[in-house]
Amino acid sequence: MSQSDLLTQLMESLRCLPGVGQKSAQRMAYHLLERNRDGGLRLAAALQEGLQRIGHCALCRDFTEQERCPICASSARDGSLLCVVETPADRLVIEQATGYRGLYFILQGRLSPLDGIGPRELGLDRLARRLAEGEVREMIIATNPTVEGEATAHYLAQLARQFEVKPSRLAHGVPIGGELEYVDRGTLAHAFGSRTDMP
Amino acid sequence: MSQSDLLTQLMESLRCLPGVGQKSAQRMAYHLLERNRDGGLRLAAALQEGLQRIGHCALCRDFTEQERCPICASSARDGSLLCVVETPADRLVIEQATGYRGLYFILQGRLSPLDGIGPRELGLDRLARRLAEGEVREMIIATNPTVEGEATAHYLAQLARQFEVKPSRLAHGVPIGGELEYVDRGTLAHAFGSRTDMP
Ligand SMILES: [Zn+2]
Ligand SMILES: [Zn+2]
Repeated sequence: MSQSDLLTQLMESLRCLPGVGQKSAQRMAYHLLERNRDGGLRLAAALQEGLQRIGHCALCRDFTEQERCPICASSARDGSLLCVVETPADRLVIEQATGYRGLYFILQGRLSPLDGIGPRELGLDRLARRLAEGEVREMIIATNPTVEGEATAHYLAQLARQFEVKPSRLAHGVPIGGELEYVDRGTLAHAFGSRTDMP
Repeated sequence: MSQSDLLTQLMESLRCLPGVGQKSAQRMAYHLLERNRDGGLRLAAALQEGLQRIGHCALCRDFTEQERCPICASSARDGSLLCVVETPADRLVIEQATGYRGLYFILQGRLSPLDGIGPRELGLDRLARRLAEGEVREMIIATNPTVEGEATAHYLAQLARQFEVKPSRLAHGVPIGGELEYVDRGTLAHAFGSRTDMP
């Protein structure tokens, strides 16, 4: 052991971040120690508070520390439109890229029977109860254009029809096999605007 | 504001890490929330403890939470050899890559008059007192081969000679396993000039 225990511990802890290997962890630890201890302490507080207090919105399953997320709690959103996405990151990018003013439902995943992820894990029972309430007219299915995302979209479209809700899907323009999170804003805005009815 | 305040705060705090932009910060926050809350809480604790308690070794200026770092505190190291490096990262890489068993002095920078970094900021008064004690026989100057690093090396060599300590410098040359074609001209010229006899 030729290094401070706390420094070793700090470097190792930083590797819990995605994309951070040994070398990056070293650089990060030294950077904080040498140049930004205050920023690092603020990060510690944000991690502690955030990871302990952020849960899921009771309505849409997005991350929030409240009972309802700001979007679900807003009276300015159109409750007749419900956009279903796989992840909070997808919701965020749609919110940033389009002028969409309806509500969301976040699956926190996609149907993947081999991984044991079925309708229950995606909260589809809750989604069904929501559709049963009758306010939603159109369900915009914005799962990723991957094999599993398409299968999930198909399942969701059936569910929508069951409650006489019109299912729609983002227009082509989203690259096949691509992930929403990495699509450029213009393409995404266009695709969102020209969403098509699902057959 | 369409997003949880704590989540926004977490994403913004993550940007204090070098190389982490908005997109990476988002990915990191979601990753921790979805898959590794425990790891994130451990990171929070390591940041808090490390950034508050890690200071500098009284002898070599390396990072440590003790009065002396593990290397300076070890009785197994050779006190007649002192290797001077710019940063703790440089010390770490020498420690990992070589069999060096002497001691270190970490400048935490290099001479850079335009940035107001002079001998005092690099702790050279402390280094001088160390050399004056008479135990050090050779000072291995391992500053970077940059303009400022070379200027610092020159200054350090003069300081060493003042105390009758032998200054030495890492050899420059073609990297092992490297291809001549891709070595920069300066290095190649130097390597050519300081060629050694083959046994
Ligand atoms: Zn919500
Ligand atoms: Zn030390």
